[in-house]
Amino acid sequence: MAGSGLGNIFRITTWGESHGEALGVVVDGVPAGMKLSEEHIQAFLDRRRPGRSRYATARAEADRVEILSGVFEGVTTGTPVSLMIRNQDQHSSDYADLADVFRPGHADYTFWEKYGVRDYRGGGRASGRETIGRVAAGAIAVELLKSLGIRLTTYTRQIGPVNAMVFDREEIAKNAFCMPDAQAAKEAERFLDQCMEERDSAGGVIECMIENLPAGLGDPVFEKVDANLAKAVMSIGAVKGFEIGDGFAVAAQRGSQNNDAFVRSAKGRGVEKTTNHAGGVLGGITDGSALVFRAAVKPTPSISRPQKTVNTHREDTMIEIHGRHDPVIVPRAVVVVESMAALTLADALLMNMSARMDRIVKFYEQL
Amino acid sequence: MAGSGLGNIFRITTWGESHGEALGVVVDGVPAGMKLSEEHIQAFLDRRRPGRSRYATARAEADRVEILSGVFEGVTTGTPVSLMIRNQDQHSSDYADLADVFRPGHADYTFWEKYGVRDYRGGGRASGRETIGRVAAGAIAVELLKSLGIRLTTYTRQIGPVNAMVFDREEIAKNAFCMPDAQAAKEAERFLDQCMEERDSAGGVIECMIENLPAGLGDPVFEKVDANLAKAVMSIGAVKGFEIGDGFAVAAQRGSQNNDAFVRSAKGRGVEKTTNHAGGVLGGITDGSALVFRAAVKPTPSISRPQKTVNTHREDTMIEIHGRHDPVIVPRAVVVVESMAALTLADALLMNMSARMDRIVKFYEQL
Amino acid sequence: MAGSGLGNIFRITTWGESHGEALGVVVDGVPAGMKLSEEHIQAFLDRRRPGRSRYATARAEADRVEILSGVFEGVTTGTPVSLMIRNQDQHSSDYADLADVFRPGHADYTFWEKYGVRDYRGGGRASGRETIGRVAAGAIAVELLKSLGIRLTTYTRQIGPVNAMVFDREEIAKNAFCMPDAQAAKEAERFLDQCMEERDSAGGVIECMIENLPAGLGDPVFEKVDANLAKAVMSIGAVKGFEIGDGFAVAAQRGSQNNDAFVRSAKGRGVEKTTNHAGGVLGGITDGSALVFRAAVKPTPSISRPQKTVNTHREDTMIEIHGRHDPVIVPRAVVVVESMAALTLADALLMNMSARMDRIVKFYEQL
Amino acid sequence: MAGSGLGNIFRITTWGESHGEALGVVVDGVPAGMKLSEEHIQAFLDRRRPGRSRYATARAEADRVEILSGVFEGVTTGTPVSLMIRNQDQHSSDYADLADVFRPGHADYTFWEKYGVRDYRGGGRASGRETIGRVAAGAIAVELLKSLGIRLTTYTRQIGPVNAMVFDREEIAKNAFCMPDAQAAKEAERFLDQCMEERDSAGGVIECMIENLPAGLGDPVFEKVDANLAKAVMSIGAVKGFEIGDGFAVAAQRGSQNNDAFVRSAKGRGVEKTTNHAGGVLGGITDGSALVFRAAVKPTPSISRPQKTVNTHREDTMIEIHGRHDPVIVPRAVVVVESMAALTLADALLMNMSARMDRIVKFYEQL
Repeated sequence: MAGSGLGNIFRITTWGESHGEALGVVVDGVPAGMKLSEEHIQAFLDRRRPGRSRYATARAEADRVEILSGVFEGVTTGTPVSLMIRNQDQHSSDYADLADVFRPGHADYTFWEKYGVRDYRGGGRASGRETIGRVAAGAIAVELLKSLGIRLTTYTRQIGPVNAMVFDREEIAKNAFCMPDAQAAKEAERFLDQCMEERDSAGGVIECMIENLPAGLGDPVFEKVDANLAKAVMSIGAVKGFEIGDGFAVAAQRGSQNNDAFVRSAKGRGVEKTTNHAGGVLGGITDGSALVFRAAVKPTPSISRPQKTVNTHREDTMIEIHGRHDPVIVPRAVVVVESMAALTLADALLMNMSARMDRIVKFYEQL
Repeated sequence: MAGSGLGNIFRITTWGESHGEALGVVVDGVPAGMKLSEEHIQAFLDRRRPGRSRYATARAEADRVEILSGVFEGVTTGTPVSLMIRNQDQHSSDYADLADVFRPGHADYTFWEKYGVRDYRGGGRASGRETIGRVAAGAIAVELLKSLGIRLTTYTRQIGPVNAMVFDREEIAKNAFCMPDAQAAKEAERFLDQCMEERDSAGGVIECMIENLPAGLGDPVFEKVDANLAKAVMSIGAVKGFEIGDGFAVAAQRGSQNNDAFVRSAKGRGVEKTTNHAGGVLGGITDGSALVFRAAVKPTPSISRPQKTVNTHREDTMIEIHGRHDPVIVPRAVVVVESMAALTLADALLMNMSARMDRIVKFYEQL
Repeated sequence: MAGSGLGNIFRITTWGESHGEALGVVVDGVPAGMKLSEEHIQAFLDRRRPGRSRYATARAEADRVEILSGVFEGVTTGTPVSLMIRNQDQHSSDYADLADVFRPGHADYTFWEKYGVRDYRGGGRASGRETIGRVAAGAIAVELLKSLGIRLTTYTRQIGPVNAMVFDREEIAKNAFCMPDAQAAKEAERFLDQCMEERDSAGGVIECMIENLPAGLGDPVFEKVDANLAKAVMSIGAVKGFEIGDGFAVAAQRGSQNNDAFVRSAKGRGVEKTTNHAGGVLGGITDGSALVFRAAVKPTPSISRPQKTVNTHREDTMIEIHGRHDPVIVPRAVVVVESMAALTLADALLMNMSARMDRIVKFYEQL
Repeated sequence: MAGSGLGNIFRITTWGESHGEALGVVVDGVPAGMKLSEEHIQAFLDRRRPGRSRYATARAEADRVEILSGVFEGVTTGTPVSLMIRNQDQHSSDYADLADVFRPGHADYTFWEKYGVRDYRGGGRASGRETIGRVAAGAIAVELLKSLGIRLTTYTRQIGPVNAMVFDREEIAKNAFCMPDAQAAKEAERFLDQCMEERDSAGGVIECMIENLPAGLGDPVFEKVDANLAKAVMSIGAVKGFEIGDGFAVAAQRGSQNNDAFVRSAKGRGVEKTTNHAGGVLGGITDGSALVFRAAVKPTPSISRPQKTVNTHREDTMIEIHGRHDPVIVPRAVVVVESMAALTLADALLMNMSARMDRIVKFYEQL
């Protein structure tokens, strides 16, 4: 079943394995007339690049993006934008001994069970490298949103037991964890050092805030913007939970606490909320407040401690995973989460254009 | 934008407003040869019916389902099954004074902003009654799964601050909250009484466990079974969070804790896990363990306390919501969550049939 | 597999069997703010009604449409419009002797082969009555197009060997065959009388012309407007061919004949064509000329002559089909073809709104 | 709007412009376990290659396909197969003088009207080179069908006024026109020579016959196999008409002529037809007979004669098209038509697996 496509009007199709020839994405439905260059996509892609700190793998890959179609003289033409990143420095031999054993916490067993064959090199399609296509496409979606004044800010809220307690936007780019709290980043560092010493790994929580969204995005009842965000974000390999606004905390709240009061304002149609427990979405449709959601990221399953497992011959065995593995993938996943959000919202923006007959008539009268 | 459809091979399209003529669903892609009767769907539908306790609204609706197509002589024919439930006892007049005011925590404002017009009676399409179509369709999906030996169990894990501490499957059907813990149900009762006294409402958490699923369901990378479950469940009006397996708790775990070890077994292809932190899904594909997920449900936004808001003329005003409203919707949402899970898994089961060439050849050779 | 849905943004899902409880359609993605009443849909639906002449069956069905959702106070709300038509006067007993025999030219055998069971009453889902849902939805699409000044004219070009030689728009509604040529209609009448006498049936060709379409509709490369029209029209039961512009005649043309020259004009962006061999579409995108296509309709397969066939027990047998059957279905199919065209173009219109970034920015700036 | 994807379970997404960096296709939903090599795809791709005769352009392109993903150790893994063909020998300068003028019969004007910008080099996305992605993907679909014993034969039925009068399967590969009639091929040669002398071009008709298809493929009512074939084939740039079985000829037939009688047989479920006017499809579902359809291909619009047109400044002007252009594209389109057929049928085959509950249960029991 075709499962590598996402989106309705603005639609991506990703492809590629960790140690195959290349990875890439076809971005279909990109509006014509947007400025687009490899430099721009590259800058975004570099945010997910390994090697930025000792908490990320040393794989020195350039991950250079090539635009293969859809752009002419620096401008999108409305036809599919095909992006490719060649694989280099693949160290396939690192994985030869994993050919017939299932790594705990990985998709080795499920792919083998489903398909009967699998590309075991570095996890194949189930590798974190699969997200390259998402991020390359995300760069275009972010640009589309920017043209409309929409801003995305994504950061780490939690690493293991360490929570960001303050929100300092400037700080996010300054530490290795993308945390908006310098003090918390220092504590996370200490925690990570300990994990590495113990040949173990850590998880965390990523938060994304999207400001200046118009009210009205999202379509009842299954194309709710939060439902689509949930799918997009939960489709990232290591994500095990998604919540919007107050999220799981709503379970212990009263209605009187959770409801956001409306008041007159100078913005939009003159209505805003005094609080934002809802996270910017009511009934699946944006309400003009900041959209805020969080994703829970599990600890890196590849740890070098010995672990019990079985092999393809159904024999009990032990596994020790060597090679390059991040003790925490949260910081590198930040831009992946932002990409999935941008892709979902770009699609919602275009879908919303056909919601009202009066606006459709006006649109065509103005051509 | 068409937003009321969900699923690829097994696909539902729901329709209807709270106080319109009727609500319903078209279930397309139902395999031919399944026994199906109105009685069967009705029994499932009755699980979401109001009036089962004093914690649910007294609306004495029959909500009788009618099968309009797709079934001949008690058996599905492979053509769309159209199901309709007529609205009765509508009390539209209760809502007349809500015509130009936005209820906090509801979708009144966002629908008005998006569409320019809205059916304000009981929330229109954004009412909880919208879920009738989901549940009617869910009854068919559950039946399909049963034919393959798959069992769904859905229950309330939390009401306000009260958590179920034990899992007693028999208890679920015995208390008004669908909790698997009789003691917790009693405490929830006390808590709810207090909420009602204070003209307030409560939220909670619903958990769904699906046993006996074959390994291999779900398609990389965007049709992951957990991503599709997240979308399906987050599309339910009051749900603000979704998590699978250990969910948000993974953020504070180490890899050595979170990884599930594989061992030989007598089941399936002879591989199982000693723990199930993953919740039955690895890399978006079922691994043969029980699939376990949770949904966070917000407190009912309709409370009778006075609340600050604005109206369609952009004037500040106060609102007091009267009429019938559940102080907690969690118990009635249990079957809705189960329905969304069943629909998603039925689709995944059918999609998985084309994963391997050897099985395709065998399938056609056996016709 | 879900096969009863069509369209992306403006999407229909039809359901219902010839002799089931009812037939209907859910129209999802209807823009909010359109005036819509049952009377309006009924008027369109009456165009496909039997009993308008002695060349159509006498089944005296009212085929009354009911709007069940999506319309509030006479205006569409943006939510799905559900339309239902109850079956009456079903004469199921007419079909009892067809339960285990395959009618030549019908889908009896293929449904039985595919599904193992079938609703044999009147062809079940494969009956011409299935088109009721298409036409009910088509009424809405036509209304949407009208709001933008777009006009559809559909008529019979050929009945058996008789071709319309002149195009008199006024004449179309005046004769029983919807022909734009009074003389041809008379000849068709004579031909049909002869067919009926010989217990035989006739086919024909339907043409549809759509005027005042904006240039730019249709998306390369698989969502070409002519490709989508072909699918929509070929999905009508009895249609065996589709052609646009000069159609099959292009095979014998030279490039110098078939190319349409461009010239300056006062219309649109100031470009028009001196001829219209292309039928209004270049590269799958409308060019501002009239869009013109044709559909070939096969002779009614239900004829009362004895025919050779087999039964479900794989025995050779003879069949004589009694009951009510049109000797030609072309006149009643005219409105079905028009509906499929309108549905396809409504969708293309909405899809086209997101083609250019400058127009998207302008759209959102004007909210 | 995303328009470059086709198919449900077996789904392709094509990309690329005539004179861009490369062209390609992502084939998603390819079953795991199929043998696949670049050699195999290349052989199929070479069938659309120019330069096979003096009736095709001399562009000496290798059009070498690269498999970038989805294949491991010579076998498909179930993940997307990404195929790329680099452009070479591009002669972009040939097209510089076409930057601001609209070629008659081409999509220059409609792309400009829709998108505001266009890649004018060689027609950009609207070039015949766009079909490379279709054919590369078609090679995989053909292989899938072969595994099930299904055979496609595609050939030229007509070139200008010349019709193939006999069907000699062996002859198809022997002449420059892919005609199954050596005598007709000779006449076509004479006709083409005359066209070239007159600086003109010719059209034709392509026929495709698919044998050994199981009965039961295709889903009512919009996913009919003939409707999907119509869309797939009409989406090829130069195709202006599609018909199945007797096609447009049915208009002049009687029911008694057009109906195919059923008889007992030793094949399949023991039912076959004595004739095949239907072309292998009844009610949109394959009936076990050979599926036969035809496509009308218009004459090459690029002719070197002077033609009247306008430019982007809305000035009347003349155009003379130089460079390499086939006087007839029919022979090269044969493999494109075959590819679109194979892609459609591969998808229908996989979709059909979920039609019956008994077969679903059996499938999962046998895992």
